[in-house]
Order: sequence, then structure tokens, then C-alpha cells
Amino acid sequence: MKELREAIRMHGVGLGQDVVKVDMFLNHRIDTALLFRMGEEFAARFRSEEPTVVLTVEASGIAMAVAAAHHLSDIPVVFAKKGATVVQSPDVAQAKVYSFTHKRENVIRVDKKYLPKGSRVLIIDDFLADGQAVQGMMALCAQMDCEVVGVGIAVEKGFMPGGKNLRAMGVNLQSLAIVTGIEDGKILLEND
Amino acid sequence: MKELREAIRMHGVGLGQDVVKVDMFLNHRIDTALLFRMGEEFAARFRSEEPTVVLTVEASGIAMAVAAAHHLSDIPVVFAKKGATVVQSPDVAQAKVYSFTHKRENVIRVDKKYLPKGSRVLIIDDFLADGQAVQGMMALCAQMDCEVVGVGIAVEKGFMPGGKNLRAMGVNLQSLAIVTGIEDGKILLEND
Repeated sequence: MKELREAIRMHGVGLGQDVVKVDMFLNHRIDTALLFRMGEEFAARFRSEEPTVVLTVEASGIAMAVAAAHHLSDIPVVFAKKGATVVQSPDVAQAKVYSFTHKRENVIRVDKKYLPKGSRVLIIDDFLADGQAVQGMMALCAQMDCEVVGVGIAVEKGFMPGGKNLRAMGVNLQSLAIVTGIEDGKILLEND
Repeated sequence: MKELREAIRMHGVGLGQDVVKVDMFLNHRIDTALLFRMGEEFAARFRSEEPTVVLTVEASGIAMAVAAAHHLSDIPVVFAKKGATVVQSPDVAQAKVYSFTHKRENVIRVDKKYLPKGSRVLIIDDFLADGQAVQGMMALCAQMDCEVVGVGIAVEKGFMPGGKNLRAMGVNLQSLAIVTGIEDGKILLEND
């Protein structure tokens, strides 16, 4: 998505080999106009899959999930919560997610009542690197007998294995921008 | 707001004396259509104050803040982060917030660069009970020389002191629904 690539070029900050900071327009501070154009783009790419619900994980995926859901005829949004420990409950679906950024294992969880069996789930998140969060959300969907009809990502780190692994599994993955590397603080983007 | 009151009546759950659960349509699972009508209502109530940015706190305030900002000509959204400890940095505004729900003190923080001096801030949150989160966000704004032009809340617990205290301070507080009490699991609402 050209507009997102331009925002990354103008306002994104590359740190070291692999850190992409987009906190001035995509998370923490959100450029609302851009957010809703991204939501429109996700809707255009996934509408034919007829999703019935958007799933994301707190906190920075929520804004984008809401924007996408709004452009998909206002289908509901569900967000999984992050916690440190596994909760024993038959009413809760949960999956372990290792965060390479924070070097620790989290558990993501969602009450089963939010995602009825047979839901057609569109997973939305702001970043894709190792793909742990997306794989965790896919595991939640499997536990609830829901079908993942697509995965929409704002910024994919193309030099990390997450995207490659998901595509190899046959997942319909759409990333609005793909970072191919960082050189001297400059963020390199695919299709530029 | 009649539609929100109806949703609370239909899908809200009252527990004990003071717990109002709206997780099936307002947080965790979000009724996107209702969310954007609430955003529209916030916009109508605060447009004349000419806010330049919406401030909320992660995670459950984000969806509503985004919906309100969208209806206010897509002004940016900033969300404060929650943490357990104070970070020493001149670039960060922070305030202590005691959570009566979780019986612990949190710190909320925001990078000062997200809220330029002189910003006209509309604070949005899903719940108002003791008002600690809102007071914390107001403290952040004061540290950054920003003006709070209004506070928009989805569900105010009218039997808790938060709303009364803010109104006594002269804050332009607008709550879309006010819960006056819980009786035998039934949520009682103002103007019903």
C-alpha cells in the first residue's frame, strides 16, 4: 500500500538490524486518516472471503482491527488478552506465544463465547516478525472450531520467518508493507 | 444515549453491588456498528470544543477513541501505556493510577512527543468509576502543557465518586450511559 510505505519512509525509524519504529503514526500515536484507509484496503483484500469477525490481540492491534471491521460492514471485533499465566477454564481458549522482542513467553486468551463455532475469522495485527502472535491466534481459532479466512498485517518484516512460514502453510496473508531490511537507520521496503 | 442503554439492558450483566460486565459488546467483543454510533455521539458532543487529539489508555479505551476521532475529522489518537514501575526519562510524562478493580497501583505513561504543547485534548475511556484513570490522563496533559477540552465516557458508574469529582472540578464530562446501581443482577440506568 503506497500510502503506508510513504508514511514509513517519512516517519518510520530504523534501529540496528531489525527494529522498525512506527510509533508516531501507527501505534501509540495513530494517524487516524491513514488508519481508516488501511482498514479500507484490508476490507478490499478480504471481503470476498466473507469474514464474520475480526480477531486481534491487545493492545496495538485493536485500532487497526476496528478500522478494518468498520469497512467490512461493521462486523464485530474480538481481541485476545495477554497474560503471564495459563488460566484453567473450559470456557477459555488459550495459546502460548513467545515474544522475541521482550524475550519472554506470554499466554494469549479469549473467552470462547466471543467466537461462536463456525465463525469465519479475519486476523489483523500491526506487525508480523516471527509470526508467534498470529500462530497463537490461529491456535485459538482451531480450539474454537473457527475458520481463519485470512491474515492482514500492516507491517511485515520480510527478513524474519513469520510471513514465509504462514504462506508455506497456505494461509491467505496480506501485508500492506514489507520491510526487507534496515541499512544505516534507513528502512528498506519491498516494491519501492 | 438510548442505543447504548438498550445494549446494556439486553447484553450487560450486573454482578454483586458494583460490577457491570459489558464484555459482549463494548470490550473484548466489540459491536462495531454500536461503537461507531457512539463515536458519532462523542463527536457531536465535543466538536465545538475543537479537540486536536484524542487521548485514551490501553487497552479497552482504544476502540472507542478511534471511533470518536474518526467522526472528528480523523484527528490523531494517542494511547497511554500501563506499566508497573516509574521510568526515569525527561521525554516521558507519567502518572500513578490506583486501580480499585485490581487493587494495585499502576503507572500510565506517554511519550511527550505524541502530544505537542498546546494540544486540545479530548479524553475518551470506556468506564468511569473512581475516576483514577481520567485523573491520571489529566495529570499527563498538565505535564505536557496541553488543555483537556473534554472527557467522554461510555459507561459511568453514577454510584461511584469519579463523575461527581470531575464535574465539581468544572470538567466537561459527557457519559453516554450512567449506571445508578445494581439490584439482583439487574443494571439500573439513569433516564430509563
